[in-house]
Amino acid sequence: MGVSVSVRAFINGKIYVSFSPLRVESGLVVHGERVLYVGSSERALEVARSLGGEVVDLSGRVVVPGFVDSHLHVDSLGLALSTLDLRGVRSIRELKERLREYASKSRFTWILGHGWDQELFEEKRWPTRWDLDEVVSDRPVLLTRICLHAGVVNTRALLASRVLESGLPGVVRSESGEATGVLLEEALKYTREKVRSELTLRDYVELVKTAQEHLLAHGVTTVGVAGCGLKAFRALVYAWSRGELKARFRVYLYHRDGEVDVVELLDRLGIRSGFGDTYLRVMGIKLFADGALGPRTAWLSEPYSDDPATTGKPLLGEEELRRITKRAHDLGLQVAIHAIGDRALDAVLEAFSYVKPEKLRHRIEHASLVRDDQLEELKKLKPAISVQPHFVISDWWAKSRVGDKRIKWLYRFKTLISSGLVVGFSTDAPVEPVNPWETVYAAVTRGRYENIPYYEDTVHEALTVLESLHAYTAGSAQVLRCESEVGSLEPGKLADFVVLDRDPLSTPDREIREIRVLETYIGGTRVYSAT
Amino acid sequence: MGVSVSVRAFINGKIYVSFSPLRVESGLVVHGERVLYVGSSERALEVARSLGGEVVDLSGRVVVPGFVDSHLHVDSLGLALSTLDLRGVRSIRELKERLREYASKSRFTWILGHGWDQELFEEKRWPTRWDLDEVVSDRPVLLTRICLHAGVVNTRALLASRVLESGLPGVVRSESGEATGVLLEEALKYTREKVRSELTLRDYVELVKTAQEHLLAHGVTTVGVAGCGLKAFRALVYAWSRGELKARFRVYLYHRDGEVDVVELLDRLGIRSGFGDTYLRVMGIKLFADGALGPRTAWLSEPYSDDPATTGKPLLGEEELRRITKRAHDLGLQVAIHAIGDRALDAVLEAFSYVKPEKLRHRIEHASLVRDDQLEELKKLKPAISVQPHFVISDWWAKSRVGDKRIKWLYRFKTLISSGLVVGFSTDAPVEPVNPWETVYAAVTRGRYENIPYYEDTVHEALTVLESLHAYTAGSAQVLRCESEVGSLEPGKLADFVVLDRDPLSTPDREIREIRVLETYIGGTRVYSAT
Repeated sequence: MGVSVSVRAFINGKIYVSFSPLRVESGLVVHGERVLYVGSSERALEVARSLGGEVVDLSGRVVVPGFVDSHLHVDSLGLALSTLDLRGVRSIRELKERLREYASKSRFTWILGHGWDQELFEEKRWPTRWDLDEVVSDRPVLLTRICLHAGVVNTRALLASRVLESGLPGVVRSESGEATGVLLEEALKYTREKVRSELTLRDYVELVKTAQEHLLAHGVTTVGVAGCGLKAFRALVYAWSRGELKARFRVYLYHRDGEVDVVELLDRLGIRSGFGDTYLRVMGIKLFADGALGPRTAWLSEPYSDDPATTGKPLLGEEELRRITKRAHDLGLQVAIHAIGDRALDAVLEAFSYVKPEKLRHRIEHASLVRDDQLEELKKLKPAISVQPHFVISDWWAKSRVGDKRIKWLYRFKTLISSGLVVGFSTDAPVEPVNPWETVYAAVTRGRYENIPYYEDTVHEALTVLESLHAYTAGSAQVLRCESEVGSLEPGKLADFVVLDRDPLSTPDREIREIRVLETYIGGTRVYSAT
Repeated sequence: MGVSVSVRAFINGKIYVSFSPLRVESGLVVHGERVLYVGSSERALEVARSLGGEVVDLSGRVVVPGFVDSHLHVDSLGLALSTLDLRGVRSIRELKERLREYASKSRFTWILGHGWDQELFEEKRWPTRWDLDEVVSDRPVLLTRICLHAGVVNTRALLASRVLESGLPGVVRSESGEATGVLLEEALKYTREKVRSELTLRDYVELVKTAQEHLLAHGVTTVGVAGCGLKAFRALVYAWSRGELKARFRVYLYHRDGEVDVVELLDRLGIRSGFGDTYLRVMGIKLFADGALGPRTAWLSEPYSDDPATTGKPLLGEEELRRITKRAHDLGLQVAIHAIGDRALDAVLEAFSYVKPEKLRHRIEHASLVRDDQLEELKKLKPAISVQPHFVISDWWAKSRVGDKRIKWLYRFKTLISSGLVVGFSTDAPVEPVNPWETVYAAVTRGRYENIPYYEDTVHEALTVLESLHAYTAGSAQVLRCESEVGSLEPGKLADFVVLDRDPLSTPDREIREIRVLETYIGGTRVYSAT
């Protein structure tokens, strides 16, 4: 039963140990999964030699701690990455070719694709199930149109989904009365939900692994899965038990999953926040206080500027929000609550006022609109906050929703950090791109180069690269309650780091998005290499 | 957010790194919780110096890897250790004094005592609830008689237990018809179960901590909790979440807990074997195939020699045993099945033949009676086996149960180990004493000095001290599926070790029980010191 434990010294690097305080060293020694020493290359060499360790010459390359994405959806990310991209396809013939090639590689029970538009097809007609059957007949296929209001399935999917038996409208039929495979609206929605519910544990494991590969390729080494359904969690545990988790996952289970009261389930076993190991931990639960600004479902204290008839609305009643928060808190579970509108934030702050959010570091997700008076309450209660800087660029239309007066409440990253709050970065992937440099770029430039309408209104909330990198590493680690193990490269922490093609601190802001990850290390082991 | 990580060198020791192969070194360096280096004191010093570490001079003392007790009951052990010992008490006056003193220190909701005998009392009468009320009236008290067939409670306990309302026989009454507080048989059994069910989470946490203190004082650093009820597990997680677990716990949950199907509960969350961290892990489930030899409930293939009317009986039907084993296996849970009689072992082997026990290292607990033909099946299926060598001394009456022919099947430790099986030691505490040297002594001497009736019959199953120490460290670690982290002091493993007052390998067998633990270290941190 020999145990082989690597001691490995990395020398001659430009190693960012931490961003606040800023500490740069040239040498790093890893023992097992952890940092044994960080300092000079000379001393690193000496330590490695006395222990018979290996030496890696970084040749002046830049190393940063692995990125910690405090809020994303691992199964949805996997699904988004596993969907055949059919945008711009010019013929049914081409669609079939793309489908054939994709199906030959896909490991999923369902074949999913998205983005076709029959207006572009040279055949000048809609695709049918018979077209798809010619290419894939043994597995169900669902290809959604670019608009998401229509889709086409093969015969197997038509039968498997039982959409014909559902009696729902939206099943397109030929002149002879046969279903063509094209589904609209209700029938399509029903079928899409069916697909999701029919994905097997193995499918979910593939989704997790697909997402993980993408994360590691972008230098993301730890993620907060906020939230996570029971099926996705089972898949994470399954992959973990087979040693297939290479990135680190910190899980926030949805407080309900179908008929299951997940808080009750955790209570019955007595699971508390942090149970698990360095790869997979249960942190707590995820709740929604409101919706989003785009569809005007975020809950505002005053009506939408572009629709005075609505203020949005709560997704959970205030009393229920308070009750679930209190219960989870008493069970030792960390609570993460989605709140985008300022009225939703009021509700969360009210719920948090009955517990001590600082103790278990309860989280607010997004906190997109924060009024000045709410800053005082935030400073008092000290919740952790997970923000998504890339929303600044994606939500270019936000000023029309909230108007001139409220626009300065939007995405107040600088203000939140200056208030002394724990602030972590995230992408909400697949909502925003996983690539951390897209997010850093957005946090630093605030839409300046994209002519975002509210650039001038909120430019004072722009962060420096240094502030952004701190929030994306140590800040997010605090949000995930794992700052003792990740977020910097101090001795004793897990040796999760990324080798870059250039120094982000001397890269012009416009070029931040071009920074490339050359290698990713988890626990001192290389898990990704660009070459 | 500084992280202080100790590098500490232990030099000039006689350090048993492992027992098979036997490896002894003088120096050990710990980084964080793990062994960084083991070898010469000179090199250990050099490594510590290059890393600015601390140096501890062992001055020639003996160090062994921490003991791994693969099967005990942490809550019952805590309860046994928390029960006031009333054996030998000579008067009701003295009983009251002892109770008063004990109650002033006890942190439990119930005050429990055991061992009184009214025959010894100078007052020449039975104790009553009024006696106890004089000393403790605000908390319930239950003191069992030495025989366990009678007990006395105070008024608070009488009311709290609702034993009067139960209508059960065994409530002793005065001439005036008042319950005196003395309870017999059914009424006592009911009350004892009530006590157990009424212990709070806090009580259980105290039980865990009390047991832990005792374990660490005896050099036991990792234990298999086989089995564990949900309440005890909740207490372990609670203590863990507060950083109060110092020993390492590997948990086997009872497959049922009252009305709860625990396998179903684990399935709903998707928890698989090994989930948790180095301090607390869920390993799987515990089942019972039969009872014990003492009360003739162990299931034998032929009748008991001292009661030809019975063969004992199964506790779970064979089909159910098979079904639960298969289900747990498919869910990735390790299965530990209690089997004392040879017929019960048949049933377990049959159940194991439907799965691959080697894969998840399913366990057989006790395997007290093993026929020759079963050895072949064991070699084929390769389950892990947890044995309790101290049974050899405690079960001095066993030959009368199984007779001359079968006595050579009893406690076949040498045979099991020679068969190439994974064999771990344990105490089943509180059934047998936690002190590992009592167990090693029993494994080595097999009752020679106690005139155990079957000494001559089974002396060929005696182990050497070296074999015993291997089974108690690396062997048990394998049983608990954690041989990559504990069981030896090779680099990369957790630095769990014990400093002894003498070298067990040069201690005469009769004196093994006198070996004392001077210090216990977990993860390189001293958690017990005899002085």
